Amino acid sequence: MKLVLASTSPRRRELLETLGLTFEVVAPNVDELRLPEEEPYDYVERIARAKANAVAQPGVVAVGADTTVVIEGRVLGKPAHPDEARSMLGRLSGQTHDVLTAVAVTIMDPVVRTVSAVESTLVRFLDLTDEEISEYVATGEPMDKAGAYALGGIGALYVAGVDGSPSSVRGLPLHTLARLFRALDLDLLSFR
Amino acid sequence: MKLVLASTSPRRRELLETLGLTFEVVAPNVDELRLPEEEPYDYVERIARAKANAVAQPGVVAVGADTTVVIEGRVLGKPAHPDEARSMLGRLSGQTHDVLTAVAVTIMDPVVRTVSAVESTLVRFLDLTDEEISEYVATGEPMDKAGAYALGGIGALYVAGVDGSPSSVRGLPLHTLARLFRALDLDLLSFR
Repeated sequence: MKLVLASTSPRRRELLETLGLTFEVVAPNVDELRLPEEEPYDYVERIARAKANAVAQPGVVAVGADTTVVIEGRVLGKPAHPDEARSMLGRLSGQTHDVLTAVAVTIMDPVVRTVSAVESTLVRFLDLTDEEISEYVATGEPMDKAGAYALGGIGALYVAGVDGSPSSVRGLPLHTLARLFRALDLDLLSFR
Repeated sequence: MKLVLASTSPRRRELLETLGLTFEVVAPNVDELRLPEEEPYDYVERIARAKANAVAQPGVVAVGADTTVVIEGRVLGKPAHPDEARSMLGRLSGQTHDVLTAVAVTIMDPVVRTVSAVESTLVRFLDLTDEEISEYVATGEPMDKAGAYALGGIGALYVAGVDGSPSSVRGLPLHTLARLFRALDLDLLSFR
């Protein structure tokens, strides 16, 4: 069996690499649009499952994941431009938000099976000045991140604390992934 | 001014690298023995300050850090052999422990100044079977880590959650480091 990560996120790749796993990366062709009225939990789980399914094939263990940031019931996706990044960071400043990460695993032998789970992690942001927000946006890091920050990058400077799984905030909850593998009678560490 | 990290820990080096900083690494020559009756907070702060002081020189901003794991009032250092790693992991299994990380910054211009802080982070471990503990010890990862695990490695599989700063558990609390720089009228990100 070959391990395939259905994600082009360098952070997810790095997280799997910290486990010393051997895997391939395949970009899943998935429409990530949120449905009208779709709950954030349902949304991330549906997308993670769609990503795993999109790269599944015989002989492959396919892993998909999706992350979104929720604050006061609103979903923050990836900012479309620097002004939107500034606005998102202003909203997160001094507040606690929820990072939802879904992970899904699909195998095809002998029948197609997909297992998935969603993890919620609370992240407390420090109070940011306008100057700090501008300095951070100028680094370029916020532009391709849900909620406009990366805990595994410069964004760590602005996070007072996390309550939950750090790997989940970074995009792939590793201990939940290990649990999903066990649910399929697979051992994640056997892919080292 | 040149940034110098007084630590040979690859994890601390990686954390500074995630900020995109330019720095040198110098191994500090410091006796890390804990004094009789020394409180864990006092111990890690004294060692972090000693490390920063050991590499301080004019024109340098020296950063030292020290991490220890405390469970039920007992300090867990680095395991001396695989059996001690197994015993430490057995103690952490299913429990919450405290990771104390101290960070210190020393500059010499115009007078020697050292600022420091200690961060406490709670880490909840999953219930581990003897088989999981043996599998983890066999990877070799536990052997040079305080408390016999690395959150930034395979150890992430065994951590149910963290309450506090993830970078602190990995050995260098980045937002606290930025705050110490500000206390010395320095900007951490200006070393990028």
